[in-house]
Amino acid sequence: MELLQKYNTVLTNHLNDVVRTKEPAQLYEPIQYILTLGGKRLRPVLTLLAADFFGDQDHKAIHAALAVELFHNFSLIHDDIMDNAPLRRGQQTVHEKWDINTGILSGDAMLILAYQLFEGYEPSQFQELAKLFSKTALEVCEGQQYDVDFETRDDVTIAEYIKMIDYKTAVLIGAAMKMGAIVAGASQACCEGIYEFGRNLGIAFQLQDDYLDAFGNPKTFGKQIGGDIIANKKTFLYLTAVANSDPNDSQTLEYLFGVNPKDPSDKIETVKELFVSSGAAKATIAEIESYTTKANDILEGIKLSEEKKEKLKSFGQWLMKRTV
Amino acid sequence: MELLQKYNTVLTNHLNDVVRTKEPAQLYEPIQYILTLGGKRLRPVLTLLAADFFGDQDHKAIHAALAVELFHNFSLIHDDIMDNAPLRRGQQTVHEKWDINTGILSGDAMLILAYQLFEGYEPSQFQELAKLFSKTALEVCEGQQYDVDFETRDDVTIAEYIKMIDYKTAVLIGAAMKMGAIVAGASQACCEGIYEFGRNLGIAFQLQDDYLDAFGNPKTFGKQIGGDIIANKKTFLYLTAVANSDPNDSQTLEYLFGVNPKDPSDKIETVKELFVSSGAAKATIAEIESYTTKANDILEGIKLSEEKKEKLKSFGQWLMKRTV
Repeated sequence: MELLQKYNTVLTNHLNDVVRTKEPAQLYEPIQYILTLGGKRLRPVLTLLAADFFGDQDHKAIHAALAVELFHNFSLIHDDIMDNAPLRRGQQTVHEKWDINTGILSGDAMLILAYQLFEGYEPSQFQELAKLFSKTALEVCEGQQYDVDFETRDDVTIAEYIKMIDYKTAVLIGAAMKMGAIVAGASQACCEGIYEFGRNLGIAFQLQDDYLDAFGNPKTFGKQIGGDIIANKKTFLYLTAVANSDPNDSQTLEYLFGVNPKDPSDKIETVKELFVSSGAAKATIAEIESYTTKANDILEGIKLSEEKKEKLKSFGQWLMKRTV
Repeated sequence: MELLQKYNTVLTNHLNDVVRTKEPAQLYEPIQYILTLGGKRLRPVLTLLAADFFGDQDHKAIHAALAVELFHNFSLIHDDIMDNAPLRRGQQTVHEKWDINTGILSGDAMLILAYQLFEGYEPSQFQELAKLFSKTALEVCEGQQYDVDFETRDDVTIAEYIKMIDYKTAVLIGAAMKMGAIVAGASQACCEGIYEFGRNLGIAFQLQDDYLDAFGNPKTFGKQIGGDIIANKKTFLYLTAVANSDPNDSQTLEYLFGVNPKDPSDKIETVKELFVSSGAAKATIAEIESYTTKANDILEGIKLSEEKKEKLKSFGQWLMKRTV
């Protein structure tokens, strides 16, 4: 998307400065590795975009944007260890390329480096940014813990699932945009508005991610297709499929989400068929649209030019149409 | 030590508030567990003591003190995973009692909670404290990485070893005291002075810890005696013993620090004998005294009453005479 390209270029240049390898190399090389794997850089781009839209301050927001990107990658490293994930953005995960201990420690260092990036702001803005960052980071940890808990629970509700992805994914997207607004000196109402816009878009984004995990293109998705199915994750797709299927199919789904076959190909195929036949696939697409609409409704109440609102709306639409 | 008792009581009361279990329980229970295992609470006590000595502000320093304690325990949880340690303060480590994933995530949350504790200070003090905290936390990570690196290196020098324990242990003790001074509004010179006092005492403290790891009382030490020997850690004891032994004994030591016997009892005994016969045990005690003296020399240059200086000196002496 053209709108994002300019921010992405700025980010890539600055990331190269942040990730210069220092001593000890074993600590900083994995940080450099994951930060240069690429990816959409969606979150930091949103920080720059918000800072630009609310006060033409994208140059000033670069530190906050990098902090968001470092935090996001910290959480990916630690989550990949917990999920035992072999691939990230089509490449080896940090703990696969090095080892678990390296993943733990390099992740810890990234979290601290993220806080350090706020040091360039004057004290009151520093405090406001760091407070939002801490609150968000803790919610991300809580979301990850709910995610882990859900793997062994068989009574997860759809509401609990939405809360989990809200914490694990959506609040960071909201916070990324709010940080840009804070740096730009936007009003409290604008800061809260853009936070809720980003957050609702974030829930839609994660539902989309769940959908693509099952139905995405393996060549472009970057992660292993069916990863959530292998890990028995009770996603919106699964919970809706169980709720909407006849008892026979529900039982099949529940059975399959209790086993861990060595070769998961058959399990993945059967589950995907049930996701489609139960209507869960379609229901997920409808839910994605519903959260996107909610985000756009919130946008209407924010004091921004119509032109900027239109740009934010098309950004949301573009985001939900992605296949990767 | 009587001087520390009053601070410790205040700390314990406040810790109980910090660690109230929240949802999700699996995230917060391990935090509550490790924080209530006891321990010396040396670092946060030093924050309160410094705040008291520099401006009668120990009540105000409680948040900074708790941040230091949370950070220290975060690092213990993650280090124990990396070191595969079964015991901490005579009890099961977090990853033993729960699992590695729980240890990773609860540790992450503790690091964030530590930053949140600074939020009670006004913006400029918040920034000063958070900056010192981040710098220190990153050095602790670097120290831990050097520690890991040294396990597989056979050319570690004594200078490198001292740098490692400086980063891994001493800077946090220095920072704990400096935070107290910052909260109390002490001068830049006082802040730097107390930092260097604490840091040198911290190096002495870690050398003492290494000594006790081999020669401490298993009933009171809390950790497994010989843990460093089992893990082939090139401590000051080991490096000095290799340097000061005849070729035959040096070779024995180097051989023993390259093997991992299932039952390590014989290895531990032989190594301890060589630590004594080579003079390394005595040299370690002399090095501890040397760093303690350096700390006291720095103390002389700090603007504090003679009475307070005397109290800090006896604190240092008490610390180095501990057997646990």
